[in-house]
Amino acid sequence: MEKTYIFGHKNPDTDSITSSLVMADFETKLGNTNVIACRLGNINKETEYVLNYLGIEAPEFIETVEDGSNVILVDHNSPKESIDNLDKVKILKVIDHHVIALNTSYQLFYRAEPVGCTETIMYKLYKENGFAIDKKIATLMVSAIISDTLLLKSPTTTDDDINAVKELSEIAEINPEVYGLEMLKAGTDLSSFNIDEILHLDAKKIDFKEVQSIVAQVNTADVSEVMNLKADLENRMNEIINEENLDLFMFLITDIVNSNSQVIALGKSALLVEKAYGVKLEDNTALLKGVVSRKKQVVPIMTENA
Amino acid sequence: MEKTYIFGHKNPDTDSITSSLVMADFETKLGNTNVIACRLGNINKETEYVLNYLGIEAPEFIETVEDGSNVILVDHNSPKESIDNLDKVKILKVIDHHVIALNTSYQLFYRAEPVGCTETIMYKLYKENGFAIDKKIATLMVSAIISDTLLLKSPTTTDDDINAVKELSEIAEINPEVYGLEMLKAGTDLSSFNIDEILHLDAKKIDFKEVQSIVAQVNTADVSEVMNLKADLENRMNEIINEENLDLFMFLITDIVNSNSQVIALGKSALLVEKAYGVKLEDNTALLKGVVSRKKQVVPIMTENA
Repeated sequence: MEKTYIFGHKNPDTDSITSSLVMADFETKLGNTNVIACRLGNINKETEYVLNYLGIEAPEFIETVEDGSNVILVDHNSPKESIDNLDKVKILKVIDHHVIALNTSYQLFYRAEPVGCTETIMYKLYKENGFAIDKKIATLMVSAIISDTLLLKSPTTTDDDINAVKELSEIAEINPEVYGLEMLKAGTDLSSFNIDEILHLDAKKIDFKEVQSIVAQVNTADVSEVMNLKADLENRMNEIINEENLDLFMFLITDIVNSNSQVIALGKSALLVEKAYGVKLEDNTALLKGVVSRKKQVVPIMTENA
Repeated sequence: MEKTYIFGHKNPDTDSITSSLVMADFETKLGNTNVIACRLGNINKETEYVLNYLGIEAPEFIETVEDGSNVILVDHNSPKESIDNLDKVKILKVIDHHVIALNTSYQLFYRAEPVGCTETIMYKLYKENGFAIDKKIATLMVSAIISDTLLLKSPTTTDDDINAVKELSEIAEINPEVYGLEMLKAGTDLSSFNIDEILHLDAKKIDFKEVQSIVAQVNTADVSEVMNLKADLENRMNEIINEENLDLFMFLITDIVNSNSQVIALGKSALLVEKAYGVKLEDNTALLKGVVSRKKQVVPIMTENA
């Protein structure tokens, strides 16, 4: 049987890494025994916590696969987030929870759902196929769902995610609140990163209508720790604004314990943040209560007010 | 609850029509009670046979839906084959067995599989959700699978299609060979069509490398009936070749009983058919043994030899 490479998106998060491991198990159970769980980038600290907790190895690092190879995509479908020669391989399956950004010239198995995490779909696939979920697989799944939904508090959370976490926590024998917070905290350890790296950990270029912007985000259990770096962060943000000719740079410091974000906003369109959220920027910063999701709570609101 | 419109592709075949009816039933079972099965075109004679057999009405004919409406796509995902304002509606779900040709800016439920028929996927969805399949639903499903796979003889047929037909035939209380052949025959009644209509019933423009071609196909249980029209067909084919500056016009008369195709080939590249299939055109025609699928048995072979 020909080898099948399974991988999530570049710059992988916990969902991409665990989904490749879980999908490899699932495919093996389906009878596809020559599968290999892979990753397209380094393991982040949150994912490292999960792998260490289970005492298991990370998926194999690959940069690309040979033309004509069989692949399965998890947690992504956009060619921009995948291997460079995606148009030259044979995609057997896609399991994903993002918008549809792929076009193919052949039929394939494609399963996407509007849920908070790929692992929630994997959980349903195991159920539908009557496959048992063991403790290791359950831990991988529940870790990713907690990660993507910030402990089920993100507005991306659905009933399916909540149900999955409930059952998977029992199989994994964890208290999701306790385990989840420890895991999320592990991911917020910024000690090894410099200012520029912190600003680029999770930064996206987004145009709010005419307002050319970058919205960067960092999760933390200790907002003050990051705010201590404010002067240095602002200096580098201003440099980036000049270099890239931006109208706005929003840096969200998201408090994973209390589900708020402290925003630092710079650039000539910074006041758009005041208008959008009904807040007053003081010394370039304000608290955005309840805001944790860039996709659901920043992009639409900023676009509407731009 | 807001209304959800369910429909298959334009110029609907039996799969598109039955899948909209079956998906409406499935959604109702899921608790989405405000759904309406629709169609984007006229019922063909094969589908008419199925609806008459069951004594049920066709889905509601619509040309379009209002911007912002909720829709579910079955048996297609390509915007070219759908309503014109597809980019202005909210696609909740896609159930399909074609290549991926859709891009979205939002998450949705997307289920595609490389099987012969959408109804084979619907069958699996009922199973996965533990929903009972009644006699009417089983008949709709099995009719579409027989239609798309030409009684499981087309090379597009998969094990999943075969398994579905086996179980569904029992629920539907039909002999698939007997019922299926009657249904397929009903679809091959060409008596109401003129020559030009016959050539355009299922015609696709395809370039085999540099060879600009049209490949038209018609299913029949009586090849000689169609071959009696050969002189008129050839006259009109030659006109189309001149009008559209084609190198090749292949007209496949596909024998659904014996799973062969009689081809009529005209144009300056007609000899390509001889090379591709190892046959000799006599009076512009030859028998292509075992050839029933344009997608799997014409496009790749003609392209390879062009």
